[in-house]
Amino acid sequence: MSAVEPPYVAVIFTNRRTDADEAGYAAAAERMESLAAEQPGYLGFENARTPGGTGIAVSYWATHDDAAAWKANAEHAEVQRLGRERWYATYTTRIAVVERQYTHPAPTADDVHTEG
Amino acid sequence: MSAVEPPYVAVIFTNRRTDADEAGYAAAAERMESLAAEQPGYLGFENARTPGGTGIAVSYWATHDDAAAWKANAEHAEVQRLGRERWYATYTTRIAVVERQYTHPAPTADDVHTEG
Repeated sequence: MSAVEPPYVAVIFTNRRTDADEAGYAAAAERMESLAAEQPGYLGFENARTPGGTGIAVSYWATHDDAAAWKANAEHAEVQRLGRERWYATYTTRIAVVERQYTHPAPTADDVHTEG
Repeated sequence: MSAVEPPYVAVIFTNRRTDADEAGYAAAAERMESLAAEQPGYLGFENARTPGGTGIAVSYWATHDDAAAWKANAEHAEVQRLGRERWYATYTTRIAVVERQYTHPAPTADDVHTEG
């Protein structure tokens, strides 16, 4: 992921879980993570959840069309339906374009081309 | 936050903590959350951390200039320095423009203007 240069698309999914069906939710989340990674234009995925609190998942895509195709994927669409019915009390999905990024640790001298 | 309509700026901060200084880190994180909320153009903040794993914090700003001013805030800059030295093993910061969003539950009839 760190080798990818902007611009690219980020889908920011912030949510609160219900208390329902933790096993089904965890299995679906794992399946969606591996299925997403097989899709055209997939660049990466990051996920965090505070126990009993907020979850944030961000997926990264080469283009808007790639992100839209993933949203429309049939198996993913069924999981989204279950999410609304069963797993999420509330969520917000944001479609964003990443314009700049910086990392720590910064790239080392080995990563930087120098003359001589 | 949900009342804010795109476009606006999202700063996506994904990170891994070191094991060091949990008390100092927690105090600084709480202070930064309240200090950020006082800044011009602040729209909101969301945060999640998987215990022992990834943390994702997203702050939302009206404009790029507002986000840049927060990054340059003197007290925040000092906390960023401590973050690099002490609290974060790795992190990536991404500056993105939110173009669309949708929420669940969807807005109710009470939120929608209808004639008659």
